[in-house]
Parts: sequence; structure tokens; C-alpha cells
Amino acid sequence: MPRIVMKFGGTSMAGIERIRSVAARVRREAEAGNQVLVVVSAMAGETDRLVQLCREAAALHDPTEYDVVVASGEQVTAGLLAMTLQGMGVNARSFMGWQLVRASGVHGNARVEAVEGATLDEALRNGTVAVIPGFQGVSDDGRLATLGRGGSDTSAVAIAAGLKADRCDIYTDVDGVYTTDPRIVPRARKLTQVTFEEMLELAGVGAKVLQVRSVGLAMREKLPLRVLSAFEDLPGTDIVAELSGANMERNEIAGIAADRNEARITLTGVPDKPGTVAQVIAPLAEAGLSLDMIVHAATPNTGSSDLTFTVPRASLSQAMAVIEQRKGEIGYAELIHDDAVAKVSIVGVGIRSNPQLAARMFDVLAERQINLHAVSTSEIKVSALIAESELDLAVRMLHSAFGLDAEQSA
Amino acid sequence: MPRIVMKFGGTSMAGIERIRSVAARVRREAEAGNQVLVVVSAMAGETDRLVQLCREAAALHDPTEYDVVVASGEQVTAGLLAMTLQGMGVNARSFMGWQLVRASGVHGNARVEAVEGATLDEALRNGTVAVIPGFQGVSDDGRLATLGRGGSDTSAVAIAAGLKADRCDIYTDVDGVYTTDPRIVPRARKLTQVTFEEMLELAGVGAKVLQVRSVGLAMREKLPLRVLSAFEDLPGTDIVAELSGANMERNEIAGIAADRNEARITLTGVPDKPGTVAQVIAPLAEAGLSLDMIVHAATPNTGSSDLTFTVPRASLSQAMAVIEQRKGEIGYAELIHDDAVAKVSIVGVGIRSNPQLAARMFDVLAERQINLHAVSTSEIKVSALIAESELDLAVRMLHSAFGLDAEQSA
Repeated sequence: MPRIVMKFGGTSMAGIERIRSVAARVRREAEAGNQVLVVVSAMAGETDRLVQLCREAAALHDPTEYDVVVASGEQVTAGLLAMTLQGMGVNARSFMGWQLVRASGVHGNARVEAVEGATLDEALRNGTVAVIPGFQGVSDDGRLATLGRGGSDTSAVAIAAGLKADRCDIYTDVDGVYTTDPRIVPRARKLTQVTFEEMLELAGVGAKVLQVRSVGLAMREKLPLRVLSAFEDLPGTDIVAELSGANMERNEIAGIAADRNEARITLTGVPDKPGTVAQVIAPLAEAGLSLDMIVHAATPNTGSSDLTFTVPRASLSQAMAVIEQRKGEIGYAELIHDDAVAKVSIVGVGIRSNPQLAARMFDVLAERQINLHAVSTSEIKVSALIAESELDLAVRMLHSAFGLDAEQSA
Repeated sequence: MPRIVMKFGGTSMAGIERIRSVAARVRREAEAGNQVLVVVSAMAGETDRLVQLCREAAALHDPTEYDVVVASGEQVTAGLLAMTLQGMGVNARSFMGWQLVRASGVHGNARVEAVEGATLDEALRNGTVAVIPGFQGVSDDGRLATLGRGGSDTSAVAIAAGLKADRCDIYTDVDGVYTTDPRIVPRARKLTQVTFEEMLELAGVGAKVLQVRSVGLAMREKLPLRVLSAFEDLPGTDIVAELSGANMERNEIAGIAADRNEARITLTGVPDKPGTVAQVIAPLAEAGLSLDMIVHAATPNTGSSDLTFTVPRASLSQAMAVIEQRKGEIGYAELIHDDAVAKVSIVGVGIRSNPQLAARMFDVLAERQINLHAVSTSEIKVSALIAESELDLAVRMLHSAFGLDAEQSA
């Protein structure tokens, strides 16, 4: 008998009417002969309300007590969904995070360590639908621990892996993973399949469908995910280890990602000698700042070079301050910053085997006179840093050039 | 080092500002050298909101899932109070009901079975203020269980008894136990001491200061209680096993209780033979109806008698139906009911040793031509059933006659 995990987000749990339609979907899966575990978020807005209460209670609050407060939201929806299912004649019960999920690490941002699945396994075999509050577990010292915002996705994947589920279905506000942001390209197309790696790149650069951690976990556990609309009865997107069937034939590029959360810093006239880059980057890393694209270009025979990198836009002034403090040590000429930049990326497993794809990308951008501030590449992604004002144009051009527009799809 | 439990109700926990003033009181007790446990209710209105959600989810909901939902309210306030205390520099942490309180019996209305106090005891000895959500524990099968509405008082007393606290202070909307309802008698006086038995009688007949179960538990555990205002810094009322000091000299009557929740049923012409009363009462008890005052008076030499008793007003029509169904069996002439009755009682440990007190009560009522429908007495209480329209007058007269008015107090 197939075993599936169904995960519902806060919008799907916002109020009894919506909980009732969630229950109807759960019943359908149970009646279709599946063993069903359901992982739920708190009602939309509830976690924000609880976080706000914590902030008011004490500016610097203890994360352990924060966990006690915010974990309550999912407890409520789990109980409500279990009783709604029972009211519809489904054999269901709730299990609490502290009865099942062992978490470790920092309170308020814990990691799932293990899922104690024996009771749950027995319940599932007896035909009981198990309803579990997402986002939480119990720490080594027996206290409530939460997994960080959006942690219900990770709970669902960890529970699915721990209980050896065949699949984990994530019901959400969007009905799947798209080739790009449909607000930028109305002809964006829903993907029927995407690989874990592609999903990580698409999520990491802006497609906020799933918590990135949960995708990484599913990839390690080889657990197929499916992203579906919580509100409409539409096919979703499967997130898988290897593309299969018709998808093996798909365009080499899965999608175009757009990310406005970038700011560029350039140091000119940096001494062109070993260790310079490290001298700049080490203090930034120490300050907890994550750098993304890094370009280091020496001007031949001058002994000096330019160093460019990007940081999240919110960290720009902090990063500038760190570098200014080290001006003497580093010895740069000028410190330039620009927060009107954006990153456009092509993502797809095909990039690995086809260097022509990167070349085509640069051609398309060059045709439109779009200037590149920096470029970075990985096995399945090529990114270019451009002016933010040119981002939408770039995304539309690339989407079309790589054959992703809806009408042109195979 | 004295160990005390402080219990705060929902009104005291309604919002961060109020939680802050609760924290200030807790800090004061901790700084005065006490080991302090705090038991908290949910924010005022929160439990009602959660109960309403359960009702909407399923008309006949599973009490186990109900417990999961409603237990969340106290979890939130416990976490918030712990972090507020920490923010004020007090060493504090929360403990959850499922970490401490073993409960048994019916979900939604469970009883406290035991308090696992080892961790708590250690924390208290180390100077940590322990904050515990009231109203909940964990059942034998490891699931959340709640203690029934108002159960936080019972939690507080059970935890105080389990941890061998010296005292349990109940902070509430009223600032103590009064000689009678101040809305009826503005000159009602706050008692400095009252015995457990008196408190049970005063609570049972209408003085809704404390959950009755919690008083019974404190009496069995010989745990002194104190009722105090959560909002003003006033002396409260001590609830004790034996009156002491100046209170030993107090008037023989502790207070006058008024109860409007009464309805009278009279069966006339009931055969005057053994077993008749049982024949009436047994089916009512089977139907779950609790009878209060029962008067059975035979008219000599007629072979027939009248039977009068009271039931809670909301149960009147159900009780009438049960009796009408048995008319043949019982063989009464007429079935009369009256829901415009009320019960006035004098309560005090002195009644035990002084039969003159009951006599004085009847004198006072007779002077004002107040007709008595029924009378019942216990060791520490004498009650009379009168017309509801005469209740306020009766309470005022008795309050004054027994020397309870504020200006006349010793």
C-alpha cells in the first residue's frame, strides 16, 4: 500500500472552511488506498502574530521560550484537522512534534535529527490518517524546538523520509514550479518535472515555492516531492532525482531565475598578488556576510587589479563598513558600490553537458546591449549580474530564446 | 527557603502589558527569597476562541483532539511570561504540562494524577522561577489532556501539593473572598481568613472566586491557599484548614451566599409509604440531574404527603418530563413547578457548635415576612429556599443581623 505525506501551508489552514477542503483532499487520498500522513502549518498570519508577541515581551528573547510560544500555532491546526477528518468519517488522529520528531541544534532554527516512527508506523498500518504539526520537534533536553520559518516543509520531508513514504506532496499557494516568474513572463510554463538540483538553483535564486532546506533534504534522502495547488485540482510539478519519460526530451534549460536581492561592491586598484582576495573575503565571512558572485580581474603589467563581488542587498552597508575598516591592510584605490543590480540565471541539468547554452545566453544579452557586471557558472546554472532596470527584459528574452514560452513548448 | 505557587488567571495574562505587571509581582516574590512556581491561564478570551474553532470543525469532536487545540493557549502565555521575566533579569524558564503533570480520566475533563517534580525541584533549588501552563497534563497514553474549564486553579493546587509548596496564591479579578456578593450588599466585607469547608460552601452556592475542585484538592492536601487581586496591591483572603489569630474570634458566620440558579418542583398527594422518595429521585439521578434541597412532609392521618426538591434552573423542563413519564408508578396528585425561587444560605464553621445561629436566621427572615419553601442544613451551612424577588432583601437583612456589615466589624 503506497504511503504518502501531504503537507499543507498556512493559507490552506486559514479558517475552518479551508481546513474542511484540506480534509476532503486527505480523505480522497486515503480512500484511494494510500497510507496518509498529513503535516500542517499554522493558520496564515498566526506565526507572525506569535512572533510579534515574543518581540513585545522581550526584545532579546530566549529562543527556547520563543519555541514554546510559536510552536502552538501548528498544534491548533493539527487538532482541528484531525477532528474535521473524524467528522467526515475518516479514522484520524494527531501526533505532536514532541512525540515524534527529535531535533537538535539552535532553538528557533533547529534541525531534524530523527523521527521516532514506531507508533506512527503502527497507526498507518491500521488505516489511521496521522496529522502532525509541522515546524517542530523536541530537543535533547526534552523541550520544544522549532525548525525556523518555513520549517514545515522540512518537517514534512523528514517525516516522509523517516517513515519511508513513497512521496511527499507539498500543497501550496502556487500550483507548481514554473519556468520563470509569471509576473515577469506571462507565458511562463509550469514544469511537469524538475530535478532536485534545478529546484535548488531555482529556489536559491528567487522561486520561493519550497524551503531550500527541505529540497536539499529530499535530495539526500532520494524522496520524490510533488508541488501542487492547495486550492485547485491541477497537476503539479514533480521534483525528482532524474528526469524521466517525456521530460528527458525537454529543452536543456529548466527555467530562468531572476533575483533582485543583490548589491555589488567593487574594489579598484587592489595589489595583484597572492592572498589579496582572501584578505577581502575573510573578514566579511567572519562578520557573517555571505558573498555570491566573485570576479577578480587583473590588468596585465600594472601590478594592480579590480575585485568585484555581490552581497545580499540588506547587508550592503555592513559589508562596506567592514572593508573600509581594513583599507590600510588591503590597500585598494577606490571602493564602489551599486545596489541597482540584479542577477539573471539559466538553470538546467543540460548545462553540464552543453557549453553552447552559456554561449547562447551571452549572445542573447549582448544582442540587447545588456551589460554584464559579473558572471558565475556552476554545473547546472549560468548567472549574469546586470542592471536591475534591464532584468525583466533579460528574463523575457532568455525565456523566449531557450524555447520556454508556453505556446512554443513541445 | 519558602516555596510558593503563584497562579494568574486569563484577565491577568491578556496582553503583554499585563504579563509585564504579572512578571513584576513574580520578581518581587523571588527577590523576597522565595522559591517561585508560576501557573498561568491562557489570555482572556483565547480558550473561548479555540473552543469555538473546535465546535466549527466538528459538532461532536473527539475530546482528545479538543485537548490538543485548547491546551495551546496556556503554552503561549507560559512562554511569554518566561521570556518577560528573563527580560527583567529574573532567572526563569517554562515547563510544559506534558513534561510534568500526569493526568487521568476523561479527555477534556481529566484529573491530575501526579506531578513529576524532580526536574522542577532541582530548578527551584537553583533559583530558577518555573513557569507552567495551567489546565493541562499528559495522559497515560502520552497525549495532551486538559482538566476542564477553570482547571488552571486545580493545576496550581496539584503542582503546589506535588512540589510541597508552603502556599498557593491565586491571583484573580476579585481581591479576596467577601462575606457576600458586594453587588447585593455594598457593605460586604473582605474576609482575612476562611476555612476550606466554608469556601466550598460559599463557592458551591455562588461565590465564583475559585474552581470548587481546586478548593477540595487543597483541603485534602492541607495546602493553604490565598486569593489576591491580580491588579491591586491589597491583602487577600487566606483559605486555611483552621482559623487562627484574630479570626478565631470572628463572628460565627463567615458569609451569606445567594444562589439564583434554582428551580423548585413539588409533587402533591404522593402516597405516604416507604420508598416513595426513592421512586422519584432514582430516575432523576439516572438522567444525570442533580437534586439539591429535598423536603418530604407527610400530612398526618391522610396517608398522603408532599415532596419538594430543587434542581438547577436549566434542568427544570428535563426533570419535569422525567417525572411526568413516571406519573403512573409514583402516583402523585399534582406536579407543581416554580423557577422564580432562590437560595439564601448562612455559612460558617460556628454553625456546628451553635444551634442558635439557624434559629436567628429564621427569625430574621420571619420578621420580614419572607416565606420559606424549603430548608436544608449541613454542619456549616443553613439554606432556605425563598422567592427570588425577596433574595436581595434576605441577604441584606442576614448580612446585617450577623454583624457582617463593614462598619460594624470588630
